Amino acid sequence: MIYSSINNDFVKEIKKLNEKKYRDITNTFLVEGEHLVLEAIKSKLVKYVIVREDYNFDYDNKIVVSEKVFKYISNLDNPSGIMAVCNKPESKDIGNKIIVLDNIQDPGNLGTIIRSSVAFNFDTIVLSKDTVDVYNSKVIRATQGMLFKVNIIIADLEEFINNINSEYKIIGTNVVNGKKIKDFKNVEKFAIIMGNEGQGVSSKVAQLCHENIYIPMNKNCESLNVGVAASIIMYELGDL
Amino acid sequence: MIYSSINNDFVKEIKKLNEKKYRDITNTFLVEGEHLVLEAIKSKLVKYVIVREDYNFDYDNKIVVSEKVFKYISNLDNPSGIMAVCNKPESKDIGNKIIVLDNIQDPGNLGTIIRSSVAFNFDTIVLSKDTVDVYNSKVIRATQGMLFKVNIIIADLEEFINNINSEYKIIGTNVVNGKKIKDFKNVEKFAIIMGNEGQGVSSKVAQLCHENIYIPMNKNCESLNVGVAASIIMYELGDL
Repeated sequence: MIYSSINNDFVKEIKKLNEKKYRDITNTFLVEGEHLVLEAIKSKLVKYVIVREDYNFDYDNKIVVSEKVFKYISNLDNPSGIMAVCNKPESKDIGNKIIVLDNIQDPGNLGTIIRSSVAFNFDTIVLSKDTVDVYNSKVIRATQGMLFKVNIIIADLEEFINNINSEYKIIGTNVVNGKKIKDFKNVEKFAIIMGNEGQGVSSKVAQLCHENIYIPMNKNCESLNVGVAASIIMYELGDL
Repeated sequence: MIYSSINNDFVKEIKKLNEKKYRDITNTFLVEGEHLVLEAIKSKLVKYVIVREDYNFDYDNKIVVSEKVFKYISNLDNPSGIMAVCNKPESKDIGNKIIVLDNIQDPGNLGTIIRSSVAFNFDTIVLSKDTVDVYNSKVIRATQGMLFKVNIIIADLEEFINNINSEYKIIGTNVVNGKKIKDFKNVEKFAIIMGNEGQGVSSKVAQLCHENIYIPMNKNCESLNVGVAASIIMYELGDL
């Protein structure tokens, strides 16, 4: 059977997964492109694969749709021909190296940070509730499949930090009263806090930090892109 | 006088600057938002400022347009109310620390690399002719005004590298036969080559490298975002 009408209820249900509200209600999300679908299958998160009728892909639980329907569901200008509906992974216990993101808004920045976190051995990413949705298609694309290899937790940041701050060193990023990152002595358990693109870390969260670090730079440059700053910090503190 | 018709020839000329072809013909480009306009004024590149009729901004050579016209010219979903038509800066002599970009396609990546290059004291960015246009509005926004603080050269990369390779160390990025970046001994004059998001550095350019470096990472991660990789390398080799 090939689904060929965009008025079909099942097709409409899938299309709705492009909205955060429906991802939250159903606890599922969409990934598109063969690379991401294969990563999702490896991670045992796939509910079913959706292919365009001309697309060859071997999988038991597969739904075939017409070109029109595939295009209707897809988020891409040039749809790839394959997607999957996935269950959201469950959050696991936190590891030793944590990165905490306070209200990051750009999907590319969040995706890049997730990608870098896997590269540099950070095991857990904690997102404030107002951070861009991690299951947004642009975020997923920017992670390059790394979304499935890191533990993601969505939490109230003050509560989260208060729960771990006797066991973990809480590290902010601030030039004022901060240490150069190369002078920072690694500890076993720590959480790095990174803030919003324009506003930085919220003052309530900033005052929970035990210590601040900064990346030295030319004074002609006010700041780095937050994806770059987070990646440089993880590169330095990731023990590789 | 307020320009209020989108059929006005002068308005149409400005609108055309959203296309690379017209930026190349006129040797000018558009920037939008007060921060970028102020940076462009400081750099003495502004031909004239364009403001929406409700926008207060003091400047001699100022053109006032209606809301409709401003929206028509603007690239933003929420137009800011101020733009400027700027002359493209002239390329200067190359400095000691150069970053060479071979066919970077994502505007955000190019903008981020430009921003980081200023932060880490790289004085010159060389772009292959097939790299995304540096005067594209998305690139300019991602530079956060740093576009005006770095020397940009567009060149045939083979020719460029052949011209400098007796004086500069040419450094590629490759794990195979590469040195860990922290083991690399800084030299006075060098050029780092970074490649396209999917394909990396083209083979013709790769074989002109004297030496390769790499960023160590967890084997679960195939690669970093190119903006992040370039920024980490500049961070390490920027002498700050």
